[in-house]
Amino acid sequence: MEPIRSVQWSPDGRALRIIDQRRLPAACVELDLRTVDQVRDAISTLAVRGAPAIGVAAAIGLVTALLPFGNESGAVLISKLATFAAVLAAARPTAVNLSWAMARMSACADANPNAGSAELLAVLRAEATAILDEDRAMCEAIGNYGLAFVPDGARVLTHCNAGALATAGIGTALAPVYVAHRLGRRVSVFANETRPLLQGSRLTAWELGRAGIPVTILTDGMAASLMRQREIDIVLVGADRIAANGDTANKIGTYAVAVAARHHGIPFYVCAPRSTVDRTTASGDAITIEQRDADEVRFAGGGVVAPADATVRNPAFDVTPAALITGVITDAGVHLPPYLFTS
Amino acid sequence: MEPIRSVQWSPDGRALRIIDQRRLPAACVELDLRTVDQVRDAISTLAVRGAPAIGVAAAIGLVTALLPFGNESGAVLISKLATFAAVLAAARPTAVNLSWAMARMSACADANPNAGSAELLAVLRAEATAILDEDRAMCEAIGNYGLAFVPDGARVLTHCNAGALATAGIGTALAPVYVAHRLGRRVSVFANETRPLLQGSRLTAWELGRAGIPVTILTDGMAASLMRQREIDIVLVGADRIAANGDTANKIGTYAVAVAARHHGIPFYVCAPRSTVDRTTASGDAITIEQRDADEVRFAGGGVVAPADATVRNPAFDVTPAALITGVITDAGVHLPPYLFTS
Repeated sequence: MEPIRSVQWSPDGRALRIIDQRRLPAACVELDLRTVDQVRDAISTLAVRGAPAIGVAAAIGLVTALLPFGNESGAVLISKLATFAAVLAAARPTAVNLSWAMARMSACADANPNAGSAELLAVLRAEATAILDEDRAMCEAIGNYGLAFVPDGARVLTHCNAGALATAGIGTALAPVYVAHRLGRRVSVFANETRPLLQGSRLTAWELGRAGIPVTILTDGMAASLMRQREIDIVLVGADRIAANGDTANKIGTYAVAVAARHHGIPFYVCAPRSTVDRTTASGDAITIEQRDADEVRFAGGGVVAPADATVRNPAFDVTPAALITGVITDAGVHLPPYLFTS
Repeated sequence: MEPIRSVQWSPDGRALRIIDQRRLPAACVELDLRTVDQVRDAISTLAVRGAPAIGVAAAIGLVTALLPFGNESGAVLISKLATFAAVLAAARPTAVNLSWAMARMSACADANPNAGSAELLAVLRAEATAILDEDRAMCEAIGNYGLAFVPDGARVLTHCNAGALATAGIGTALAPVYVAHRLGRRVSVFANETRPLLQGSRLTAWELGRAGIPVTILTDGMAASLMRQREIDIVLVGADRIAANGDTANKIGTYAVAVAARHHGIPFYVCAPRSTVDRTTASGDAITIEQRDADEVRFAGGGVVAPADATVRNPAFDVTPAALITGVITDAGVHLPPYLFTS
């Protein structure tokens, strides 16, 4: 089966092509995005999501948004780039990959101050493609480093979606699962549904099922009970931002899983590209947590599930302290505590 | 405001009147049930739910189902009672209150072996009314015993719905909250939404909002994170069955809350009537856990949220071991570990 391509160039190279994840699992629909507003909206409404994928999407989208200015001067293009990069970087505040990708694209332009617009666009296109290709390679590397923790018969718990749909390649948390499966190991996955937006039941279950990997959906309150019944061998989750001391921001509910894993002596690994490590953030206390709209909690599956005026909390992420993390699997290797991520 | 009456006699005394909890919070609709099939279906589809409430509903429903046989002999009535009681007791397997109420009604009939049908119906009606009245008194007693743990300003976390909608009175886990509020204490509640059936967001948020008690809905993955931020002072949950050693079956997700509470040093109390203690069950290992339909997980809010053929787990309950329970608040007082519930 064709691998999932959640973010890629359109065939003509003039658009960012994404799988519209708001439509999954009911329908797998691709969208071609060209303007900065389209790309920003796709990121902020989670049509494209996952920290690595939104970095790639913003890089490609930045180039496609600049294409209409190909007849302007290089200076105008660089000015537009700065404006557009700021808009895209602000589309979601927690994932470091977004600002990382925008900074990298800006640095690329800065390195070519005298280039004409055509040359500049070519350089930027190459840089976005490099970010895309590196993301795919990053996934493979995480998969290979994580393979040691996914033996034949392993029963993996994951939270949210840190799979192919969250990256340009085979995912982060799910990369070791895909590589193990590719090697013929029998591996099965428990997917927390991950309220409020249900990325686990909508996305993780969909992409693993598509790949022929056994997957069982749990509501978010079930995993601890399965751990107690010794049905889970390892927890693999992604990350949206990893502080220098190893504290990790990831989808809301991750911390509860980490606490339960520690209580039951089950290893808990964070899988993420090096670009997710934010060395300028000393600890999790300094991570800004995105607060999302209350209606995401008041609604589920398109229906109202709470009183219309109910007060809700809706933080998109929580912070798991380094002390609860058995290891951090990146494309550069497996990091064990104490975590001292430095430049 | 009128108190909530989730289960009661209809005004003419010929039907069981319930609030149809499947319709909440969109609409508060009362249903009058008369036949054993109607009552069984209401219990199994969770139109009426909550361990104490379904015991009361089954007792009243048993009487209303027998009314059409008022012209038969006492022996025929007793035979019908045995059949109906078995049907109702089997409507849900985990809650001990259901079989407890049916056993009590049967014992009442057995104590009147020579009664005519009219006399027998009168005795049974009185017994069902006693079960109803005792349930209301039980709630008040739990509220008074639990009051010591809900000081002014207390921030309470609860899971599922163990409130007025789950009993004939002011609830079990929420009874201390209602009594504290009645006394003018400022108390606020965090309600886990409680997937898959969302009793927390649909029911707990509705009934507390109706009573003017501040309530904030959380998705089930959030509470641990709030505990870490020191926003929760105490956890109060109900119970569907308490084993002799204190192990407690309650709504799926309760165990995860208990693990998180222990990790953060937050007191975790189970609130339940004495009738929830099953002294014939030595420990939680012997408790049968009801497995419910997969579509409850595949759907949310009336919409599909997972691939149609996805494998899911859907245990209705989990077991929290006694070691994680700070205390058990019953209508007979506060029990502290070690729990040795004997006859």
